[in-house]
Amino acid sequence: MRLRNKPWAPALIQQHPEFILVDPPQMAGQWQKRFAKSQPLELELGSGKGQFIMEKARQNPQINFIAMEVQTAAIAMILKKQVVEQLPNLQLLQANGRDLLNYFAAQEISKLYLNFSDPWPKKKHTKRRLVAPNFLQMYQQILASQGQIEFKTDNQGLFEYALLSLNNFSAQFNRISLNLHASAYAASNIPTEYEDKFTQKGQPIFYLQAQLRPQKKDCPLNNTAEQSL
Amino acid sequence: MRLRNKPWAPALIQQHPEFILVDPPQMAGQWQKRFAKSQPLELELGSGKGQFIMEKARQNPQINFIAMEVQTAAIAMILKKQVVEQLPNLQLLQANGRDLLNYFAAQEISKLYLNFSDPWPKKKHTKRRLVAPNFLQMYQQILASQGQIEFKTDNQGLFEYALLSLNNFSAQFNRISLNLHASAYAASNIPTEYEDKFTQKGQPIFYLQAQLRPQKKDCPLNNTAEQSL
Repeated sequence: MRLRNKPWAPALIQQHPEFILVDPPQMAGQWQKRFAKSQPLELELGSGKGQFIMEKARQNPQINFIAMEVQTAAIAMILKKQVVEQLPNLQLLQANGRDLLNYFAAQEISKLYLNFSDPWPKKKHTKRRLVAPNFLQMYQQILASQGQIEFKTDNQGLFEYALLSLNNFSAQFNRISLNLHASAYAASNIPTEYEDKFTQKGQPIFYLQAQLRPQKKDCPLNNTAEQSL
Repeated sequence: MRLRNKPWAPALIQQHPEFILVDPPQMAGQWQKRFAKSQPLELELGSGKGQFIMEKARQNPQINFIAMEVQTAAIAMILKKQVVEQLPNLQLLQANGRDLLNYFAAQEISKLYLNFSDPWPKKKHTKRRLVAPNFLQMYQQILASQGQIEFKTDNQGLFEYALLSLNNFSAQFNRISLNLHASAYAASNIPTEYEDKFTQKGQPIFYLQAQLRPQKKDCPLNNTAEQSL
């Protein structure tokens, strides 16, 4: 979701290097230094206005969180709230998800959140979907062993693709719900801004928690899913 | 779905040993002898009144089909139609799915259909679901290499469980739809009697096509899905 331009955003970002980094060249493997404590590090890819990741950080002081978002207008809204709240376990990263390996070292992340990412429904844009194999390969590098991916979407086609793509990549599924808000996982769910709007319309939210298995040469091949959205 | 008792059923079954076998002791590996031609053999587990498998057989003379069903009243209704149609590529087997390995030899089946099977929603009945690991282990034995499983249900909880259970068993997913009748797979779909009723109510049909990968010792373990319906 593209937000309207915020004229104040660039200045605010410049004023708060303690909370936000923009396309930082040398942070891979160094993120713990940015936090008050060294503790498990979780990343949200595409944080929007940050409702989800800020609530996660509030509820989980024993975990460090990074809100990654490419849009200036969006990440500046998270920053504005963080300047007030000063959560010691939240850092912001303005950067593009396709360059993930520039910013994180192998196994640096213990959990990855993909919330309501762009479905890119056209077949020619498949590679832009955040659950396409090119992204999964990056996640496999930066995620710790047993590291999990939490995926939510309101888009049926994207969810079907996510199931196929992750399965074909040998991910192990731990949790699935085709109606998150009516499931056993509803109680612990933290909604995004976008999710709140959707739920008000009564539409189901699709949810998947999976972990990427280490890939071994002798194991059956990972094929690419045949199905387009 | 349990059908009303049909008083004429046992006699009809006895009269047509050319089309139906009841709990046959020595058919494993011998099924091709029951058909006009030796050709790929596909099995429906739980055929109900047989609308699906009979239409499959009509449309695919190059494939042999077995309708397996435990209920006398149901399989007798398939037989009644088969006595009239005399499809050379359809055989009936009255037997219980849990005894599958009594009836089929290793790799004898090239495709398995599971249509609208009982969801057995209670956790203590998990093992009765036709996609529980105890069944998948049997399928893995009787299915040929690259043999596929086609699964349809209207039950959301059962579909979620099927995705988890098959994924955790290292199945490879080829096709998924959370709304089969609105998907690219609708044109080639053959509905069951039960499916027709459900579709009329406007409820979505869930669809999965998967194949069981050969399991190798060195590959990541198959864990059991944590989630109950």
